[in-house]
Amino acid sequence: MTVSLDTYMKEKKAWIDRVLPRYLNAAPIPEKLKSSMSYSLMAGGKRIRPILLFATLHALGTDEEKGLCTAAGLEMIHSYSLIHDDLPAMDDDDLRRGKPTNHKVFGEATAILAGDGLLTLAFQVVASDRLLSGEVKSRIIERLSNAAGPEGMVGGQQEDLEAEEQALTIDKLMSVHRRKTGRLIRFPVEAGALIGEAAREQYQCLTAYADHLGLAFQIGDDILDITGSEAELGKTVGSDLTNHKNTYVSLLTLDGARKELSRHVDRAIAYLGSTGLKTGLLEEIAAYLLHRTH
Amino acid sequence: MTVSLDTYMKEKKAWIDRVLPRYLNAAPIPEKLKSSMSYSLMAGGKRIRPILLFATLHALGTDEEKGLCTAAGLEMIHSYSLIHDDLPAMDDDDLRRGKPTNHKVFGEATAILAGDGLLTLAFQVVASDRLLSGEVKSRIIERLSNAAGPEGMVGGQQEDLEAEEQALTIDKLMSVHRRKTGRLIRFPVEAGALIGEAAREQYQCLTAYADHLGLAFQIGDDILDITGSEAELGKTVGSDLTNHKNTYVSLLTLDGARKELSRHVDRAIAYLGSTGLKTGLLEEIAAYLLHRTH
Repeated sequence: MTVSLDTYMKEKKAWIDRVLPRYLNAAPIPEKLKSSMSYSLMAGGKRIRPILLFATLHALGTDEEKGLCTAAGLEMIHSYSLIHDDLPAMDDDDLRRGKPTNHKVFGEATAILAGDGLLTLAFQVVASDRLLSGEVKSRIIERLSNAAGPEGMVGGQQEDLEAEEQALTIDKLMSVHRRKTGRLIRFPVEAGALIGEAAREQYQCLTAYADHLGLAFQIGDDILDITGSEAELGKTVGSDLTNHKNTYVSLLTLDGARKELSRHVDRAIAYLGSTGLKTGLLEEIAAYLLHRTH
Repeated sequence: MTVSLDTYMKEKKAWIDRVLPRYLNAAPIPEKLKSSMSYSLMAGGKRIRPILLFATLHALGTDEEKGLCTAAGLEMIHSYSLIHDDLPAMDDDDLRRGKPTNHKVFGEATAILAGDGLLTLAFQVVASDRLLSGEVKSRIIERLSNAAGPEGMVGGQQEDLEAEEQALTIDKLMSVHRRKTGRLIRFPVEAGALIGEAAREQYQCLTAYADHLGLAFQIGDDILDITGSEAELGKTVGSDLTNHKNTYVSLLTLDGARKELSRHVDRAIAYLGSTGLKTGLLEEIAAYLLHRTH
């Protein structure tokens, strides 16, 4: 059966959107803190990371429900990272997905705590998953914390802060992005491979796919910052340029960045070919990055 | 064999102080971020939470090494909470344990990331523990995240923020403290009981002990804010009073707070009597709270 990507993405986004509030509502959390956590968690993200996890399970013929708690935790971590990233001491952003950022609505102190709360709740949700064994949950938490923590995303954010004052080489830019955004794109594919018990070679091909996908995703973001419309992106266009940020576009030109995007998408898809799995959806997700408008 | 508490505390503090840097040094973390994380993690804390975990394992006759990763993770979470608590948007403190606070040394952005990094690394350290089964690790992570997260410590910090503008009743103050500081005092005893496979009744007595200990600990802190010396505390004395904070002393008077402290210590110790375990050290820890000077 071929499932069209568009239908699949809508269906899975609706699923995770329906499930996420349950984790917040089940817990006795002070009202304002809960509102602040929910505001960012339910702010209309595309849920691309959960969808990657579900599509990997689909490729392995594993029940997607087995990935639900992990997907929920991952999305909480993604949300927390955006809240803290937007803080005055960090990127100092007022808008996110067309809405005021968390600290603009709830104040800085509650925004810091909402981020801390989402990060911590993420691990609670994975650890209390009833469908996975303790062994699998421990391995997932080990990888998720590694991907999100000081060796991964948090480390990448620090490198990004430090890079603001310098011109980077393309290699250094890629290494910052591998940490800052790449690890959290790789993780859902890794987790799916783990939960779906992929063979060793399949695991290697799937994670290689995810690594190229992560870079393609970031290059696409840089391109959209130049070519996208504010209405579609929900944020100021061209801000990377005015902030003199190191981006693929500033280092490679727009045309060069497009070629690099296309190259990573091709390589990602090539890796899927060797898995012998039902990777149609994963291929379509990679191809979708070539043409997305937000 | 009776081990004196003083020797035991020194020995265990030295052990955890020796082990903690290894987790940081083993990981490829950007230099400034690692320094910032290490600055607060190694700032000379008393390690009371790890010591509680080891003493609980000692009571159960379990090898204390089995608690080492959990103790390390717990101390990382305690450190992260202090970094974020001291931020300008939160308590805006310049001094902690007699030294400039993290954001004063490394800047606000890196301090936020160092806190995020320690919180995330904590779960990685527990999840990759080689001495515990996946099942036990998952249960420990479930409890640790629950104790530290929006239902526990982070929720308590939010309640504390909101309480700044109001006069609290003693019951409300206790409920804020149970979350904000109590849950992370209870956790090491809970984790020890879990790792040491305490029987159901033992588990209940040990955690009841820990709940009273947590309240005694907070009452003691409030008393020290009035009676302690700045040199011993490493922070400004009387700051609760000048900040019009709700404390046990402001609600109960100094004498009333001392009586309440003594009552909780007595009740904590009484619970230990019913466990049938070697609880000498745990008793001494409770008694120590009556007389500590910092």
